Amino acid sequence: MVEQDEILKLHAAHTGVLDIHSDLAVTDKAELGKAYTPGVAVISKLIAAHPELKAKYTMSGKLVALITDGSAVLGLGNIGPAGGLPVVEGKALLYKNLAGINAIPLALNQVSVPAMVATIKNMSLSFAGIHLEDITAPKCFELEAALKAELDIPVYHDDQEGTAIVVLAGLINAAHVVGKTLQQMRIVVNGVGASGLATARLLAAVGVKQLTLVDVYGVVTADDQRYNRYQRDLAKQLGTPAQLKGQPLAKVMADQDVFIGLSDANVLSAGAVHLMNHDPIVFALANPVPEIAPAVAEKAGAAVIATGSSQYPNQVNNILAFPGLFKGLLANGVKQVDDALQVQVAQALAKTVTNPTATMIVPSVFDEQVVPNVTAAVAAYAQAQH
Amino acid sequence: MVEQDEILKLHAAHTGVLDIHSDLAVTDKAELGKAYTPGVAVISKLIAAHPELKAKYTMSGKLVALITDGSAVLGLGNIGPAGGLPVVEGKALLYKNLAGINAIPLALNQVSVPAMVATIKNMSLSFAGIHLEDITAPKCFELEAALKAELDIPVYHDDQEGTAIVVLAGLINAAHVVGKTLQQMRIVVNGVGASGLATARLLAAVGVKQLTLVDVYGVVTADDQRYNRYQRDLAKQLGTPAQLKGQPLAKVMADQDVFIGLSDANVLSAGAVHLMNHDPIVFALANPVPEIAPAVAEKAGAAVIATGSSQYPNQVNNILAFPGLFKGLLANGVKQVDDALQVQVAQALAKTVTNPTATMIVPSVFDEQVVPNVTAAVAAYAQAQH
Repeated sequence: MVEQDEILKLHAAHTGVLDIHSDLAVTDKAELGKAYTPGVAVISKLIAAHPELKAKYTMSGKLVALITDGSAVLGLGNIGPAGGLPVVEGKALLYKNLAGINAIPLALNQVSVPAMVATIKNMSLSFAGIHLEDITAPKCFELEAALKAELDIPVYHDDQEGTAIVVLAGLINAAHVVGKTLQQMRIVVNGVGASGLATARLLAAVGVKQLTLVDVYGVVTADDQRYNRYQRDLAKQLGTPAQLKGQPLAKVMADQDVFIGLSDANVLSAGAVHLMNHDPIVFALANPVPEIAPAVAEKAGAAVIATGSSQYPNQVNNILAFPGLFKGLLANGVKQVDDALQVQVAQALAKTVTNPTATMIVPSVFDEQVVPNVTAAVAAYAQAQH
Repeated sequence: MVEQDEILKLHAAHTGVLDIHSDLAVTDKAELGKAYTPGVAVISKLIAAHPELKAKYTMSGKLVALITDGSAVLGLGNIGPAGGLPVVEGKALLYKNLAGINAIPLALNQVSVPAMVATIKNMSLSFAGIHLEDITAPKCFELEAALKAELDIPVYHDDQEGTAIVVLAGLINAAHVVGKTLQQMRIVVNGVGASGLATARLLAAVGVKQLTLVDVYGVVTADDQRYNRYQRDLAKQLGTPAQLKGQPLAKVMADQDVFIGLSDANVLSAGAVHLMNHDPIVFALANPVPEIAPAVAEKAGAAVIATGSSQYPNQVNNILAFPGLFKGLLANGVKQVDDALQVQVAQALAKTVTNPTATMIVPSVFDEQVVPNVTAAVAAYAQAQH
């Protein structure tokens, strides 16, 4: 296809889409002496005495490591670390283009979680932050928890925190459009991998009371050993009744206000949407093919429909979160992307849409207010911490 | 000092001296779709099926990892990985400015050699080559050997191969200036850490027959357990007589043609130079203060004097080697920097000086012929391999 050829040509033209840029000229002895030796010895000695100054005088104070092991790439699954490289490289490009952030794409061999932790920890002083990407669940949960415990720089998993933030932003505005409150709504999250679990957790954190998790074995309950401990722990926290164990999606859709799909193509039927409460909200975020076609959902009565694709209105896209978020983290020295910060960023994103409607619950990724608004939310969060 | 303030200001202005540069604009849906999703899925799928194509379509095909653990930084010693960052960052800048090569500075925690190997191996598919820097001996020998065995990309330790190449280049021209042949000369290498050992090995590889190694315990012999096995193995290979064990430097300088110091300030006396053969060559490469002041060496009869400093003629500086060398490695798919390649590069560097004299045995680091000549030497080497 012409389009494919063009994409390949574009990414091969410079061997990838990024370059290292030098900030100083070195054309004579004086310039060389300041950029490199003997001048750098001044800085090396200073940092040796005061290691924290590395963040002021070296790239390590601004560089984000964008790390994948290629175990859950886009909708392609476990295609290996090399296959994951184009995605992390593309995200590094977005960091630069949208927020001026310097990020370096790194693919790691698929080794054990302790080996991944050791690898990232060993090189972590080269970076100002860690952005994890396209790492499968439950591996990503263990990895992120261990890194957060070990490192004193922000650790962020875009598939988790990023998705949770943007879904929450969209849901805040969708609730407003249908005249319901978030806390009163009954919500099903279908697909509780990295994204689904993080999203459900954040919804629980903002006070959503009636939240049901569903995955391949049906409803997730605390005692269902087919699910991993992260999924079971959340079901326990949510108080999912034991008798719902393994119930299929269609059986629990009655009277729900919201369906959030982070699962697979075409798993939600029109009939299931019909069973929902009045003015149902359908987030069919599977990519490239959603859980239900937007036209079908609309015909079945959905009042607000969001997808993960730019083909339809209301694209729930992590691009709305990560560039401004990391810009704010680095500018304000914030070390943890906790629930409170995620909520503040989601609210700022929601507010970026001045007049939410059924077809405009999230801003466009090209809305120039997105990054400054997200960054300002992080700054406000940081200020409140002091 | 004004100079120091200026250096600090220069390195803080952009938080280090490098930036990540984006090669593509992303201002609308069409551009976004080609630079990132859904376009990158085309490349991810292609690479998943043909992993070697990552080198064509992602930055991993051109990016050099410039890695230190800060255990032997400049003349400062073991100042830690953070202290090593300004040096690798400065070298990454030189790669870009002098040869257009993309290199990323990385500092690793000081962990065991197996842990360093695992860390570098785990992330190696993100890179086209590994440049090791400022890692202490004998750790650097074990590390480099293990990485060369494990990885299918070039692994190069600048303190070893880089220094060996430039010293050999200078020595080729110095020998020419005094009318002696390299193979007939009697050479002392004083200081057999990373640089000294690699230099002595390369000299042995080009047929130097009378080569004596000296370090803190005097002459290195095969049975002297105070020296590490790399030092003892080379002494054995060189056939150093057992009765020279521990002899101090001054005792072995008689009738030597060449002194190569990669050791400490002021360890060579004028008296020792007086003892040397006619037209002695003195490479006093300790930095910033050489093993003997050039003026003192000259007064003591040295015919050719080189140092590591830009203050004097004949600066033996690795900048002459690594930018062009890696440019050649990457352009020609060369995977190993072996002895034969090092010799060819040294000869090319030597020939870059069209008319060698006592004060012009190596080209200036600003000589614009250096990088193309070195790169051409690597290309010629690569062609001869086929």
